[in-house]
Amino acid sequence: MELSEDELIAAIRKLLAGEQPGVALWIGDDAAVVEAGTGQQILTTDMMIEGVHFERGSISARDLGAKAIVVNVSDMAAMAASPRYALVSIGLPRDVEASWVVELYGGMRAACDEYALSLVGGDTNRSEAVVLSVTVVGEVAPGRAVTRSGAQPGDLIVVTGSLGAAAGGLALSRAPRATATRALSQPWGRELLDALARPIARVGEAQTLAQVGVTSMIDLSDGLAKDLSRLCAESDVGARVDLGKVPVAGALRDGAVALGVDPVELAVGGGEDYELLATIDLTDLERARGELDERFGTSLTDVGVITEGRGLVAVGVDGRETPLRPLGWDHFA
Amino acid sequence: MELSEDELIAAIRKLLAGEQPGVALWIGDDAAVVEAGTGQQILTTDMMIEGVHFERGSISARDLGAKAIVVNVSDMAAMAASPRYALVSIGLPRDVEASWVVELYGGMRAACDEYALSLVGGDTNRSEAVVLSVTVVGEVAPGRAVTRSGAQPGDLIVVTGSLGAAAGGLALSRAPRATATRALSQPWGRELLDALARPIARVGEAQTLAQVGVTSMIDLSDGLAKDLSRLCAESDVGARVDLGKVPVAGALRDGAVALGVDPVELAVGGGEDYELLATIDLTDLERARGELDERFGTSLTDVGVITEGRGLVAVGVDGRETPLRPLGWDHFA
Repeated sequence: MELSEDELIAAIRKLLAGEQPGVALWIGDDAAVVEAGTGQQILTTDMMIEGVHFERGSISARDLGAKAIVVNVSDMAAMAASPRYALVSIGLPRDVEASWVVELYGGMRAACDEYALSLVGGDTNRSEAVVLSVTVVGEVAPGRAVTRSGAQPGDLIVVTGSLGAAAGGLALSRAPRATATRALSQPWGRELLDALARPIARVGEAQTLAQVGVTSMIDLSDGLAKDLSRLCAESDVGARVDLGKVPVAGALRDGAVALGVDPVELAVGGGEDYELLATIDLTDLERARGELDERFGTSLTDVGVITEGRGLVAVGVDGRETPLRPLGWDHFA
Repeated sequence: MELSEDELIAAIRKLLAGEQPGVALWIGDDAAVVEAGTGQQILTTDMMIEGVHFERGSISARDLGAKAIVVNVSDMAAMAASPRYALVSIGLPRDVEASWVVELYGGMRAACDEYALSLVGGDTNRSEAVVLSVTVVGEVAPGRAVTRSGAQPGDLIVVTGSLGAAAGGLALSRAPRATATRALSQPWGRELLDALARPIARVGEAQTLAQVGVTSMIDLSDGLAKDLSRLCAESDVGARVDLGKVPVAGALRDGAVALGVDPVELAVGGGEDYELLATIDLTDLERARGELDERFGTSLTDVGVITEGRGLVAVGVDGRETPLRPLGWDHFA
């Protein structure tokens, strides 16, 4: 198939356009917003496939189960919503041990407990590769969901935490065995693998940012460049990103030479950090930064500015401007 | 893996037991019932995997898309709920044409329109085999969901419509080419394949049955024997099924000799009919039957009775009793 993931989504979106009763927001954001009784609900779903999103040999069943929940919770966070319920559909090959399945569900349960949602049901199937499809239903006060489409020219672009550690973990897991073994004897090596296997969803941070008043938000699942380009497309704006300001994960800086990777490139292009990217008026920046630090100890870094027009520009440390290409993780690449 | 599907579900259920805030009903029924604002919501999910649930060569993309929606809508029906929103996660191999994907989503859209639900979002992925995971969110008046657990000894067991056509369609699709070609020149042959490819969810019928006052309900996705055994397990009762009363689909009767199958065996053991199985007090039977016929032209047949204890017994036309074995479709068999 010749379509990229974004092209496919655009085609599906066109095909499904039309009157959709009760739907406040649908395809094109991190999650859908629908009317439910007197309130609004947030719906999201995410699929993880063995051989595409993970290898059974390189992540424990427990971590995999937890991650399948957390990536959906992160989509809830991106809307400033509270996750409430999870449904899990699973496909299992014949060679999977019952104990592996028990660990997998143990990981899901632990993640549900941590983020205060209930795992309420699902579907079990035989399959060739392990397939995990999780749907999360969440709540938001009516009209309070933060979407991808509210960014205004002049808004600052901010990100929580630091970037690139998960991409560093992926590079490590694909490195020659000798390199990987040496890396795992170092704190940065274990930290990078942990970032990939045990992501954290920024639910509380997102709600705080929404209270302070961010104008748009998205979670960084596919990389800063790609996810920022999606946010800009929905907001019909452009962006300038100052590469020197991008908060590169410390462990990635420490391990970049050993792994032979460019840390800024991974921080901008790598996926699976599950940090938040938001846009905010300059006058709200300091308050947002203070609240996140005080309540969660989480940093907030301004990395650029929203511009008019549709171009995405990267400004290097030497001041040179290049197009910021959305080279992040494409599930169809 | 040595566990059957039901054993796996039992293990997962045990693992996930504990306090689940806002959950009225969870694993063990057709769908979960959760608190949502001032009302209740119904959540269900169902996965279809190429090579397990379907072959790409033997169902059109349009029918496949519609079926993926309808099987979830049928789970809504089984709870007497109204479907409102659908989410679709999909895995697509590289050899799938864009036109096939467009047809698939066209079928989903058509089914959503038919059952008055909105397709609000999803997730797209690369995979080895086509994987379709659909989640449907529905509504029900608080306390009005019909579960699997309310059957009482003495209740009659009723089914809507007729049974076995989908299993006949499956037998036809697996028959030698000469047999299949001859079958497809007959009305019954086309009818059997249609039953398999284009199931109908009994949403209106289910709500009518709930109004009349059925005591428990389930949709027949895995076959009368298997689904009745699940309903009986949740209600802690047994059942006697009169095989002579089981409403065998006419097309299956017509084609049984040509296909070399036992029609009653397929009607009792075959899956994917998506008819409703319910239990009802004798005094309500005639009214239920009259309402279904008048409003929908759908028949309602009493096929047996709920008993004390946990055994499931089949009574043959000769009066001989044998255990009713849950030999229906097990996704792990």
